[in-house]
Amino acid sequence: MTGWLKIVGLGAGAEKWLTPEASDILHTATDIIGYTPYVNALPKTVSAKLHASDNGVEVARAEYALSLAAGGAKVAVVSGGDAGVFGMASAVFEAIENGEQNWRELDIEVTPAVTALLAASARIGAPLGHDFCVISLSTYLKPWEIIEKRLRASADGDFVLAIYNPTSKHRAEDLQNALKIMRETRAGETITIIATHVGRAGEEITISTLADLNPELITMNSLLIIGSSHTKTLARAQKKPNKLQFVYTPRFYK
Amino acid sequence: MTGWLKIVGLGAGAEKWLTPEASDILHTATDIIGYTPYVNALPKTVSAKLHASDNGVEVARAEYALSLAAGGAKVAVVSGGDAGVFGMASAVFEAIENGEQNWRELDIEVTPAVTALLAASARIGAPLGHDFCVISLSTYLKPWEIIEKRLRASADGDFVLAIYNPTSKHRAEDLQNALKIMRETRAGETITIIATHVGRAGEEITISTLADLNPELITMNSLLIIGSSHTKTLARAQKKPNKLQFVYTPRFYK
Repeated sequence: MTGWLKIVGLGAGAEKWLTPEASDILHTATDIIGYTPYVNALPKTVSAKLHASDNGVEVARAEYALSLAAGGAKVAVVSGGDAGVFGMASAVFEAIENGEQNWRELDIEVTPAVTALLAASARIGAPLGHDFCVISLSTYLKPWEIIEKRLRASADGDFVLAIYNPTSKHRAEDLQNALKIMRETRAGETITIIATHVGRAGEEITISTLADLNPELITMNSLLIIGSSHTKTLARAQKKPNKLQFVYTPRFYK
Repeated sequence: MTGWLKIVGLGAGAEKWLTPEASDILHTATDIIGYTPYVNALPKTVSAKLHASDNGVEVARAEYALSLAAGGAKVAVVSGGDAGVFGMASAVFEAIENGEQNWRELDIEVTPAVTALLAASARIGAPLGHDFCVISLSTYLKPWEIIEKRLRASADGDFVLAIYNPTSKHRAEDLQNALKIMRETRAGETITIIATHVGRAGEEITISTLADLNPELITMNSLLIIGSSHTKTLARAQKKPNKLQFVYTPRFYK
């Protein structure tokens, strides 16, 4: 077989965060497959045939990509951020596991990228300077019980916690429930960061305490970071208005 | 002040993972400061004055960078991987917090990058397909008690666990102690990945179970990933010898 399938993270929003390897793949692929907003955001220089599809059809999209590659196409499956962090990579492996035997003979590769968490953290300073946990809050993919268990475990370990997919139109109560657990298990003065549309038009970052956090600012395009007991703010002296303070977690734990 | 300080992640090893933003900064800086191996691995086209220093002097390096920037230099402080994940970013903010007041007036930015965990995961499939924790095992920076608490919390939450800085010449017993806790708290058949020198010459990746994991293969250049109860291997049918199986964690949790 001459086809291949490469699973590509586009980086979190901005082309300045697209790696050279990912860019090379996008410019060599004959076919690019992904969720519509990511396909629409590809570099203008890409000349591959584009296949955009809706949210929620990840395995069908992966199967289509695999069948194209098995037919000889050079296929890039794209995700925003890093494809291995709540992106298309696992969906492709699920499709391979349950799919045609010859899909396992394909040349399959994943290329890493800047995930939203790293982009949001860089924008605000260094909130991940110490140990951290990453949880997707989507109850489409797992029962609430395991989410609750993980929220509590992350507090028990005093980890910095990053929450992907904090809310969506159809499950706003999950975020309310998660905040309730966080407020039960962590101090009210814990530093929190809401980072929305990071690296894209309309980027918005808000720092507050867990007690004062306003859930209205959290959208399906937000990432939520809850600090550990050591995470702190650091005021800038800059005269520039609208410059946020820094947030960082020291390397040392006392 | 005309100087600036930008904290730059070089990506995990390979130039193909260096973002355009990071590359631009390296090519605009007048001075680049970092741990010797990272300074030695800069792209050959960089013409800045290079300041290499040893491991363990992170705050002194940060102070030197800040004083250069305060004097008008355009300074890039470099880390391997992402500077916000056990890299130089927190050290710079520590230095600012405890340093000269005018350092807070500087133009300071962090740029995100591909951290070792994302690179290692991409190489092997999608082990981070679900929720995960990240812990540095270095007891230089925190007491063993908090490491133990976090190892246990990560098992309580059935998180995939990534361990940075798993060992060094002077603290081999920390890894032995950590493995003991992991073997007490997770099943013997849990999938593990040892990824060494990812993206660089001598890259080596080993998959095994937690019961069979050979600690001799773990060096100070390794990243260790411990799967959740759902992490699994997926055999390739490829005829190519030496091709590892894939490892992935399904998106769904049952």
